[in-house]
Amino acid sequence: MDYYKRSAVSTVPNASALRIGIIGLSAGKGWAVKTHYPSILQLSSQFQLTALYDKNIQTALDTIQKLKLSNATAFPTLEGFAASTNVDMIVISIQAAYHFDVLLPLLEYSKKNPNLKYLFVEWALGRSVEEAETIYKAAADRGLQTIISLQGRKSPYIYRAKELVSQGYIGDINSIEVSANGGWYGYERPLKSPSYIYEFGNGVDLITTTFGHTIDMLQFVTSSYFSKINAMVFNNIPEQELIGDHGVRTGKKAKKTAPDHLLFQGSLINGNVPVSCHFKGGKPTKKFTKNFIIDIHGTKGDIKLEGDAGFAEISNLVLYYSGIRANDLPIANGYEVYDSSKEITEVYHLKNYNAVVGNIFRLYQSIADFHFNTKQIPNFPTQFIMQGFSFQGFPTLMDALILQRLIDNVHRSSISGVTMDVTNISNFP
Amino acid sequence: MDYYKRSAVSTVPNASALRIGIIGLSAGKGWAVKTHYPSILQLSSQFQLTALYDKNIQTALDTIQKLKLSNATAFPTLEGFAASTNVDMIVISIQAAYHFDVLLPLLEYSKKNPNLKYLFVEWALGRSVEEAETIYKAAADRGLQTIISLQGRKSPYIYRAKELVSQGYIGDINSIEVSANGGWYGYERPLKSPSYIYEFGNGVDLITTTFGHTIDMLQFVTSSYFSKINAMVFNNIPEQELIGDHGVRTGKKAKKTAPDHLLFQGSLINGNVPVSCHFKGGKPTKKFTKNFIIDIHGTKGDIKLEGDAGFAEISNLVLYYSGIRANDLPIANGYEVYDSSKEITEVYHLKNYNAVVGNIFRLYQSIADFHFNTKQIPNFPTQFIMQGFSFQGFPTLMDALILQRLIDNVHRSSISGVTMDVTNISNFP
Repeated sequence: MDYYKRSAVSTVPNASALRIGIIGLSAGKGWAVKTHYPSILQLSSQFQLTALYDKNIQTALDTIQKLKLSNATAFPTLEGFAASTNVDMIVISIQAAYHFDVLLPLLEYSKKNPNLKYLFVEWALGRSVEEAETIYKAAADRGLQTIISLQGRKSPYIYRAKELVSQGYIGDINSIEVSANGGWYGYERPLKSPSYIYEFGNGVDLITTTFGHTIDMLQFVTSSYFSKINAMVFNNIPEQELIGDHGVRTGKKAKKTAPDHLLFQGSLINGNVPVSCHFKGGKPTKKFTKNFIIDIHGTKGDIKLEGDAGFAEISNLVLYYSGIRANDLPIANGYEVYDSSKEITEVYHLKNYNAVVGNIFRLYQSIADFHFNTKQIPNFPTQFIMQGFSFQGFPTLMDALILQRLIDNVHRSSISGVTMDVTNISNFP
Repeated sequence: MDYYKRSAVSTVPNASALRIGIIGLSAGKGWAVKTHYPSILQLSSQFQLTALYDKNIQTALDTIQKLKLSNATAFPTLEGFAASTNVDMIVISIQAAYHFDVLLPLLEYSKKNPNLKYLFVEWALGRSVEEAETIYKAAADRGLQTIISLQGRKSPYIYRAKELVSQGYIGDINSIEVSANGGWYGYERPLKSPSYIYEFGNGVDLITTTFGHTIDMLQFVTSSYFSKINAMVFNNIPEQELIGDHGVRTGKKAKKTAPDHLLFQGSLINGNVPVSCHFKGGKPTKKFTKNFIIDIHGTKGDIKLEGDAGFAEISNLVLYYSGIRANDLPIANGYEVYDSSKEITEVYHLKNYNAVVGNIFRLYQSIADFHFNTKQIPNFPTQFIMQGFSFQGFPTLMDALILQRLIDNVHRSSISGVTMDVTNISNFP
């Protein structure tokens, strides 16, 4: 089948839907009800919510009632939830800081559910590379196919950029510049904003989130990991002013230990391409620059991706392309002859694309494609594989672990002042 | 006097003009006749060409005749030229690769000329930090006031940016991004282009020229040196295709050892400001980006400098400013109250400004200002001083040496893979 296009199979599956048990879905608030829930709802022939875990069972029962999840059961214990045979796929949509404590027992208990095939975890995978390694290994030992919400790979703009690059529309990549503004790590913060996102080490900050998602998208587009990197992490704003509702100044301040700036530079393994990245917190200054820019310069053309926030994985973007496709120029005496009629320009923008839901929705589509196709593959791999840089499929805990290793090297480089060789971080034994 | 404005003194000096002996001026071709000569000509009440050195005396005589330099004498020996008492200022406009071999004997011979006060040398000062140190020391021992052509400091756009920063128009600087394209270090080069600019180690390349001038301007604007830096130097294009006249392909290739990319990141001493710089060679790709960009983000506003080439010291630029001047907002309950009427926008562009001549011309103006003012200062300093970050004056060999030390650290960082502490490179014993 042509993996570049949506498959016909997934939209009309000839089998029963994948049964989902979810942790972190609440009808009242949060990320899951805004993203996972509408995605599952729109793919109701492929996915069905059958189990919810919440140690406060009333929360789970309320969610079932409010969202009319008529096929779902509420579980007050992790053990009961994990052991339920009415679940094919578990979705974890909780803070990264709790991943380790929840996932390890969950994976152990889940051995009682022979139907369980998939584990879907939110990025970041744990709080550190050590936690990520342990979680990854436990999931691999349990024999689950994993999914990580590095959903930027599913952004239509990222996908299109990857197509242009892989099909030779910009020739060889020559250099790359990235600039992103993660606005909230600045001089002020809302009084009601949870403090954990301003504390370093919770798996959600400028490095893990803004940088992590962005660099994952960049590697995906270029189909290359890095060979060497240098990073400088800054916390130049150790105290933030607390702002009340309607912008009222409270006169109070709060400590910030999370970084507000990251300088990152390095070279890609493929082509030794120089890449420089500037990730800033602080006030978004949109006067003369966009808050998200990726410039990819090639020998035959350029791609520019632009967005309004340093969170491209949940942003609507614009893609600009201009260039001449490799091998499209006529050859005379062994040389390409420039022909302006071969020059192409493309501006790609989906005006009403809701990237917050849309990219997660496309991730669920990929899972459905994978599941309803692989059922027909006789030699289904016993060892599940990572996505790497394939167009098809979805990012897995292996992809997440590679990214956590890169982030770990970012901090090591910043602390030690040494340029790190990261050529081998994508290797698995 | 107000050094921010042009002084009245310099335009009508009450003394005889400074007598200039020059090396490297040729009526036929080259940099000096396009820049030094018209600058001197336009300031004829302050400067007069009185001596030319060329070991081929006919070249010097031809130049005197063609340019109608009626007061100038041609010298065939460096010794005679250096000893001529009819010279107050020596201008060296030759390749940096020859600085060391010319300047050391010149300075020695010049002891026979008690009138000599000024030595003006083209950037870069020599081929390496070691040569620069030696030349600087010899000039200092000789007691000369030196001038280096880091003329970007005289660009009206750089000057205006420095004014805006120093007068609080962008508050505190928060972060800086620099991107420049030194077009010619690319996949092709003109057949008739001299090969020395593609060979590493001649004091004229992407690092010395594009980076050197640009980072000097940036330090000048921010009034800060760097505390730490990391750099990665690339030569990804080791062979260039030779292009004949009218773009004819010759089918020949030539070796390139000079770098084609530099990634540079670091923090300023003042405010620990993160700075990221991307200097690329290769094909200029102006589709979606300018070939020269400096973005300075502050807590109260932003400055953007844009140009068409990665050689801002010889380019006409555009300056964009938007922000609120520090202390311009009304205060209530101890807090600034936002008032949109205080927000200012400025676009500064001199449509017909010829930056190639103009910035050198302004450098000569500064020398005249200095000379015709200092003559009236009773306690003229016996030890001449460097410009540093003063608005007034002109960059000196001390400023050049600090820059050569930074460039040396760029190479050391790239080779060793270590982030360098450069806090002390601006110190002199």
